[in-house]
Amino acid sequence: MILILKNGCPESVMTELTDRMQELGYIVNPIIGVEKTILAGIGGQEHDKVDAIEQLRAHEWIDDVLVITRPFKLVARDYRPESTVIDLGDGVTVGGNDICMMAGPCTVETEDQLMTIAAEVARSGAKVLRGGAYKPSTSPYSFQGLGIEALKMLRHAAQTYGLKVITEVMDPRKVELVSEYADILQVGTRNMQNYDLLREVGLGSRAVMLKRGMSAKIEEWLLAAEYVAAGGNERIILCERGVRTFETATRNTLDLASVPLVKSLSHLPVVIDPSQGTGRRDLVAALSKGAIAVGADGLLIEVHPNPDHALKDGAQSMTIQQYRDLIPALKRIASAVDRGLPLN
Amino acid sequence: MILILKNGCPESVMTELTDRMQELGYIVNPIIGVEKTILAGIGGQEHDKVDAIEQLRAHEWIDDVLVITRPFKLVARDYRPESTVIDLGDGVTVGGNDICMMAGPCTVETEDQLMTIAAEVARSGAKVLRGGAYKPSTSPYSFQGLGIEALKMLRHAAQTYGLKVITEVMDPRKVELVSEYADILQVGTRNMQNYDLLREVGLGSRAVMLKRGMSAKIEEWLLAAEYVAAGGNERIILCERGVRTFETATRNTLDLASVPLVKSLSHLPVVIDPSQGTGRRDLVAALSKGAIAVGADGLLIEVHPNPDHALKDGAQSMTIQQYRDLIPALKRIASAVDRGLPLN
Amino acid sequence: MILILKNGCPESVMTELTDRMQELGYIVNPIIGVEKTILAGIGGQEHDKVDAIEQLRAHEWIDDVLVITRPFKLVARDYRPESTVIDLGDGVTVGGNDICMMAGPCTVETEDQLMTIAAEVARSGAKVLRGGAYKPSTSPYSFQGLGIEALKMLRHAAQTYGLKVITEVMDPRKVELVSEYADILQVGTRNMQNYDLLREVGLGSRAVMLKRGMSAKIEEWLLAAEYVAAGGNERIILCERGVRTFETATRNTLDLASVPLVKSLSHLPVVIDPSQGTGRRDLVAALSKGAIAVGADGLLIEVHPNPDHALKDGAQSMTIQQYRDLIPALKRIASAVDRGLPLN
Amino acid sequence: MILILKNGCPESVMTELTDRMQELGYIVNPIIGVEKTILAGIGGQEHDKVDAIEQLRAHEWIDDVLVITRPFKLVARDYRPESTVIDLGDGVTVGGNDICMMAGPCTVETEDQLMTIAAEVARSGAKVLRGGAYKPSTSPYSFQGLGIEALKMLRHAAQTYGLKVITEVMDPRKVELVSEYADILQVGTRNMQNYDLLREVGLGSRAVMLKRGMSAKIEEWLLAAEYVAAGGNERIILCERGVRTFETATRNTLDLASVPLVKSLSHLPVVIDPSQGTGRRDLVAALSKGAIAVGADGLLIEVHPNPDHALKDGAQSMTIQQYRDLIPALKRIASAVDRGLPLN
Repeated sequence: MILILKNGCPESVMTELTDRMQELGYIVNPIIGVEKTILAGIGGQEHDKVDAIEQLRAHEWIDDVLVITRPFKLVARDYRPESTVIDLGDGVTVGGNDICMMAGPCTVETEDQLMTIAAEVARSGAKVLRGGAYKPSTSPYSFQGLGIEALKMLRHAAQTYGLKVITEVMDPRKVELVSEYADILQVGTRNMQNYDLLREVGLGSRAVMLKRGMSAKIEEWLLAAEYVAAGGNERIILCERGVRTFETATRNTLDLASVPLVKSLSHLPVVIDPSQGTGRRDLVAALSKGAIAVGADGLLIEVHPNPDHALKDGAQSMTIQQYRDLIPALKRIASAVDRGLPLN
Repeated sequence: MILILKNGCPESVMTELTDRMQELGYIVNPIIGVEKTILAGIGGQEHDKVDAIEQLRAHEWIDDVLVITRPFKLVARDYRPESTVIDLGDGVTVGGNDICMMAGPCTVETEDQLMTIAAEVARSGAKVLRGGAYKPSTSPYSFQGLGIEALKMLRHAAQTYGLKVITEVMDPRKVELVSEYADILQVGTRNMQNYDLLREVGLGSRAVMLKRGMSAKIEEWLLAAEYVAAGGNERIILCERGVRTFETATRNTLDLASVPLVKSLSHLPVVIDPSQGTGRRDLVAALSKGAIAVGADGLLIEVHPNPDHALKDGAQSMTIQQYRDLIPALKRIASAVDRGLPLN
Repeated sequence: MILILKNGCPESVMTELTDRMQELGYIVNPIIGVEKTILAGIGGQEHDKVDAIEQLRAHEWIDDVLVITRPFKLVARDYRPESTVIDLGDGVTVGGNDICMMAGPCTVETEDQLMTIAAEVARSGAKVLRGGAYKPSTSPYSFQGLGIEALKMLRHAAQTYGLKVITEVMDPRKVELVSEYADILQVGTRNMQNYDLLREVGLGSRAVMLKRGMSAKIEEWLLAAEYVAAGGNERIILCERGVRTFETATRNTLDLASVPLVKSLSHLPVVIDPSQGTGRRDLVAALSKGAIAVGADGLLIEVHPNPDHALKDGAQSMTIQQYRDLIPALKRIASAVDRGLPLN
Repeated sequence: MILILKNGCPESVMTELTDRMQELGYIVNPIIGVEKTILAGIGGQEHDKVDAIEQLRAHEWIDDVLVITRPFKLVARDYRPESTVIDLGDGVTVGGNDICMMAGPCTVETEDQLMTIAAEVARSGAKVLRGGAYKPSTSPYSFQGLGIEALKMLRHAAQTYGLKVITEVMDPRKVELVSEYADILQVGTRNMQNYDLLREVGLGSRAVMLKRGMSAKIEEWLLAAEYVAAGGNERIILCERGVRTFETATRNTLDLASVPLVKSLSHLPVVIDPSQGTGRRDLVAALSKGAIAVGADGLLIEVHPNPDHALKDGAQSMTIQQYRDLIPALKRIASAVDRGLPLN
């Protein structure tokens, strides 16, 4: 930690500040210049000193506080140099050499709809069935999901076609219930900083997919993952789904640079959601290819037999035929970056 | 609702779309031009048709769907032309002619700290005591609040000095508990779209302060308020606390234009949080004046006797002396816009 | 300047880096910790070392470079503690105690239009007449301004009613011409980083109003002003006109916090453009009041007798009656912050 | 064009508005509903009616104006369905089946530096040599480029190694000079809306690379291209180089979705600049692969023999070895999307 002092800082304050830094475990080097004086502190990790650092930042004689180390620990690549591979059982993994395809409807609507989609995506290389049972809707007058009925349908469809299940959980009170049916608990973009929910999924053992908040910095995203890990559950998959910018031609701006960046900072696998990331069916194929090319470990794609009758997000859902055509194109890209994309 | 069709749309599809619009209650006018064909639908409110509209947007022959009416209803100025005044009892109101000052520490730390601040802010015009009992912290290693102990201290300090209490609730399981101690339940920026929490506070009768999400559009903010209102609780105060932009010199970019804009769209009162809105103690006074000048109904200000020993957010906390000096300046501005700011 | 080295940096590299820092004039203090090693350099101002600093940032053994001092000099408050007052002659100043009102049409359309508006705004407290002669238009098919004819009309109208003239210059080849007719040269938001234009206006002696780029950080804005000052012309007025964010309900997000912030960093006066800043006529009055309350030195307001026949930006132009009604309201706010707003 | 009227709009105003629409060439259909009345206008293209549309938007009885057609024409895919291929001579094209590699230093520094880099990039598949002669620098104290000397060196190096030249022009007065030496004139991100510059390059015949403004919407970017095309020069290459967002871990947020989106809207080729787009050397390789996978027609990459001695932007410059290693990886991706990337 480096404290940059304001001009004219009295010596007594410098002593006080040095003492405070020493109490925090820093070895303090005062460097007194003509224009600026700084107190440079060298010590261990700083992730557990955030409050103390913020206090110093508030000090009337301090111009700025510069922090040297990263604020997260358990999810950091420094902490665990090898990439984490999440094993979902039956040979399905996320973070290994194979790209993990996760596909399905935005929202579970009927048994028929779900079985049709599950059958098709299983045939076309998906390992994980996605589908919303509890839906976060911007409007209270919009469909909120079928709840437990949808969970049952998901489990049944997955079992029938040899798939794993991913579905969103929004309410800490529902974590236990959803964990009975799902192999991966999805924490959505709106809940990335819902700390009670993060703590709750961190206490369990189900794999967690943590979507990036729509205006979350990379560091904040990794800190949210740290909440889950700090609870004891390190089976975390990160999912980039586009961030909010000034651009309105796409629903979000998909930040593909986050993939190599996060993979250098953290050992966790990263998946891309090109459906939410663009909001436009006609862009999903291109961005799926881009995602694999930049190094993503998987894709989360919305598929619907009749997008214009989908209860939610039809505009960004691929048709079954489009999804089927996508797979061979993705296999070629995967192969060009030495990754696999096996059909079932 | 207006459907803009793609060129070459077959007549059979036009018939299908017309039928779908009529089923939704629209009177449909087809307008066939040389370059574009549109289906113009006139009907009632569209806030309860969001899903149907989204389905149409996903249709392969539809280029765009233009929606005419607003997606929210209960919180709209159209629905209730008179401004809502939230009565907190004992003559304390939000949304009336008087500016409502809410002040206190970011986080409740000790009985002593809280009593000192409460005494001072009560003396300097505050009607509501703020203070965090459950703190949303970006890092899991940061202080998370004293919980129920803090709630008790808040109630005690408020009673002693004739103040009302506002404090944040993050977990739907804690709404009942926090409602026992607080006069206003604050829903924080990270939870603006935590729908289970919104539903929970919407079922109660405690006033709710809904902070704008850090990247929420005005419309999404009002839709979040609509969730609370739709649950039966219309005692809602909106709070602008800055949005996230590319600028890093301030913690957030305080959007003061949102005040007159929201007040034209909605009947709900609007409060400004200049502490979070800037993140810098030295800017709080100026933005507080600006807030009243643009028409805010109240201010939510962080005050701490020793900001550089505050457990949280000291950098944006005013000292007690600064807060004391601020009040006469604010009274002058309030008076210049024909508002009151009575001392206790 | 502080260099944070990567773990395992060889001693020979540390020596090389120390030498490079010393060549730049720094006294170097190496601080070697268990987890991190840093080289802390203390020296003079760093504004003239930006390229050298960037080179170091590119070094393979350097993790980060932290810069201590500000990158601008001539426009900094540190350099000139007293606030700059721009004297436009005939008692008209910007940056003194009086709020300077600048008003007029977005675009000069006809002699009649301009004379009508000039007469009215002069009567209602304006000191400076605004009006576009060369218009930056997003579309090439949109009106581009009347050019020199408009300049002549502006000068004539201003002379008739005792006003000063502000108008935009976009092309470095036109700076000399526009300077013949205008008292203030406006550099627009799209040209804030048009360095050839900045250099050109910096060589002259006409006052320059530098609008903030639509996504410019405060620091970049002041560096653009530094370009003008470095050319020899220190008669610079800064103008905040809203920044681009995700919000679409207003044309821009007006950053009123920039006023007190810039005034603490720089000695230059700051003016607010609430017309561009909101894009909505119905919000201009409220934000004008807010601007004065936060400490702005002037306002730049679009006024048109028939906004729905304005050639440009009618949606954000006040009617003459609205402008007339605004002035007494602003005088009250100005008075509440001990500023004047004299009528002519 | 569709006008949505405010409730209570008098019949006389409806007649006036209908007349105005008819004068603009629209066939007007009034649709009178219980809650809303709209005037639906069907006509030809609307790109030349922007001013008239804005005037209507300013009308006191109009709630909103919805525009149906796109505001650009010459650059639109509708206007010219076949993709444009820019022929630079000697078999070098941009927009054909082959990916066009453009590489070189950020800034031309010395004859030696440039010849070294040119030799190397020519050997590794580059067809175009990049290098700054006139540099836009945020600080006036930063290096501004070698000017005409650099132009001469670029031409000499290009001739020696069989390359074409791309370099930036910032000043309309320099367009003629730069055109003597360069095969492609680059208009930088800061000048995307410098209309006098756009007009000037539009009058010439040199190919123009138009970089996206750092906060430009796709539509604004295409309108800037329309300025160039409207001047007569349709040899335009678009270049996405990242947009400005709240994220600070990368210099910009590279919007790869813009590639397929722009290519659906426009017939112009699109190139990606991953160096500016990320600002980090360690991310350039991954994003280069992603760019080709999403359909980019070329790449613009910064290469320097000693990045930590580069006069500009070393942090984002690849070393020569890194560039050399990148090419085979890119060839594999290109091949996976049926594109070529021939070595020289």
